[in-house]
Amino acid sequence: MSKLQQTLEAIKTVDKSLEPEIQAHLDDLTKPKGSLGRLEELAMQYCLATKNVKPELPKKKIFCFAGDHGVADEGVSAFPQEVTPQMVFNMLAGGAAINVLARNAGAELAVVDMGVASELEGEGLISRKVKAGTENMAKGPAMTVEEAIKAVEVGIELAEGAVADGFTLLGTGDMGIANTTPSTALYSVYLGITVKDITGRGTGIDDDQLKVKIDVIERALDVNRHLLTDPINILAAVGGLEIAGICGFILGAAANNIPVMVDGFISTAGAVTAMQMKTEVRDYLFFSHMSQEKGHRVIMEHIEARPVLDLDLRLGEGTGGALAMTIVDASVKIYSEMATFSSAGVSEKDD
Amino acid sequence: MSKLQQTLEAIKTVDKSLEPEIQAHLDDLTKPKGSLGRLEELAMQYCLATKNVKPELPKKKIFCFAGDHGVADEGVSAFPQEVTPQMVFNMLAGGAAINVLARNAGAELAVVDMGVASELEGEGLISRKVKAGTENMAKGPAMTVEEAIKAVEVGIELAEGAVADGFTLLGTGDMGIANTTPSTALYSVYLGITVKDITGRGTGIDDDQLKVKIDVIERALDVNRHLLTDPINILAAVGGLEIAGICGFILGAAANNIPVMVDGFISTAGAVTAMQMKTEVRDYLFFSHMSQEKGHRVIMEHIEARPVLDLDLRLGEGTGGALAMTIVDASVKIYSEMATFSSAGVSEKDD
Repeated sequence: MSKLQQTLEAIKTVDKSLEPEIQAHLDDLTKPKGSLGRLEELAMQYCLATKNVKPELPKKKIFCFAGDHGVADEGVSAFPQEVTPQMVFNMLAGGAAINVLARNAGAELAVVDMGVASELEGEGLISRKVKAGTENMAKGPAMTVEEAIKAVEVGIELAEGAVADGFTLLGTGDMGIANTTPSTALYSVYLGITVKDITGRGTGIDDDQLKVKIDVIERALDVNRHLLTDPINILAAVGGLEIAGICGFILGAAANNIPVMVDGFISTAGAVTAMQMKTEVRDYLFFSHMSQEKGHRVIMEHIEARPVLDLDLRLGEGTGGALAMTIVDASVKIYSEMATFSSAGVSEKDD
Repeated sequence: MSKLQQTLEAIKTVDKSLEPEIQAHLDDLTKPKGSLGRLEELAMQYCLATKNVKPELPKKKIFCFAGDHGVADEGVSAFPQEVTPQMVFNMLAGGAAINVLARNAGAELAVVDMGVASELEGEGLISRKVKAGTENMAKGPAMTVEEAIKAVEVGIELAEGAVADGFTLLGTGDMGIANTTPSTALYSVYLGITVKDITGRGTGIDDDQLKVKIDVIERALDVNRHLLTDPINILAAVGGLEIAGICGFILGAAANNIPVMVDGFISTAGAVTAMQMKTEVRDYLFFSHMSQEKGHRVIMEHIEARPVLDLDLRLGEGTGGALAMTIVDASVKIYSEMATFSSAGVSEKDD
């Protein structure tokens, strides 16, 4: 059995038998029942995912997966492809938004080259290049199924390593010029949504480029139609290397009962791919924020997810995830540090 | 001229001439322009409010104002009035939700007795009791105009003290059984909204109690009708001591160019009162979260405010504000710590 198959088999729905004990503790904290709303939900989900009714503060690490996209040749992005390696170096140097927000969250950050088109070396870079950028999916499959599986398995291995290092809350991030294009294609196929309803402006394209982008995605789906048969084949045909890495990373974490904070539009495409492979993975996912990228709201509604934050972010990298990790931290502190009604001598509700 | 009048005169709209310099810096950070959405807005507002184009990390302090309400006699709350002092002691002991979330935000916390009905003493308590709880507003004015002014001026003085201590981001909070009742009455009068459209369940009353609550508020507005003439008279007639304190606290901060993070339903009533007294105060206000208390969404839409967070909180104490302070911190770090395009050697957008 392949690593991917083993991992999929290992993913189980969370153990709901712990729920009453966790809920009883939440209800004994000195506040009206349920009055901390989503903080209580987040604490519950974190406890269930990690199978721990007395959790410590999450030990957090964000993995930012980088990859290039052959489809960038079609003029679907506002930025040139050279920005992918430039931003990887910016991350390694500590100057990108994700560096600031990971530090702010007390999370470690790893940057992974899954498939940047140029040769990359740099201190701290995790080199797992499966392929030097995908092929142009408007003309054929972005990658072979073998390459897609390899990229997914890289993600699984990275998650396993992070679990072995003791991290208890993992985060996803992405860097890859043009990567809203394959993400949109994946959503369209997996969820059956019309391309133009979810195609957005990415890093900031104008109306004409938006029309081009929609046309390119439709062509990609057309030319690859015969390959769009199951989750991994679809990922290979119209996905991306960093998206495959994110998908695998999520699967690897869930298989080890470690929850994952999913960043925005690109990371959610990895998450939806993972959910297509194994529905149960959903129990381990926090959806961090509602991206300003046009289709994200449609997709969140489609998968019935309510993100933690809604701050009009559209940067990726893991930035929304890093911010939302701080809210999960707060929820665990509420769970662990508040006084209970009995200990504090506070009267309960009149009945 | 009274302290209140002096403070109102000192509040000026922010200096927009700094905006181009701040915006130019935000646009030079290594990200697509505007892609950090509300983080960029928050950084801009913080810079403008503090008149500082190179801000340091905010030094933060939350003041939780406690007071009791004579109208609790009418059965408008799910909890007995004895909970107000009990929760004050819980806060002084460090066990309440606001203690956890203030620590989490790196914010100091002060608890102020503005008008708890019982005698209170405790280490760390700031005693500024104006009156041992308001009168029952369903039968007459909650307090005299002199008492209301005194409570507002206590808030101003506390803000002035915090400014003198070097705090650069202040937060509001409240504790007071039954205080959604006067808050709702204030909203109704100030904003011209029908009582039943904004009366909610507070800490968790049932349908019958909700009907009672609506009736009590309508009676309070009726019996005090002749007093509802200007902001301070309205505050005296159907407000509360902690709400008056919050109002003054906001005014005192704004008069000193220090922004205030406004917590939920009760704090917003203090903020709306302050805005009724001086529109310009708005420039200094961050609205932290959309409370789950029914009327809050209506009120946010009415005053055209978009809160930072929407986490179904309905606890008060300053909890939503403490959480949202962490997002403002993140925004200031983004502003201060990210690399610029020129320094990082990253290509800008194709034009």
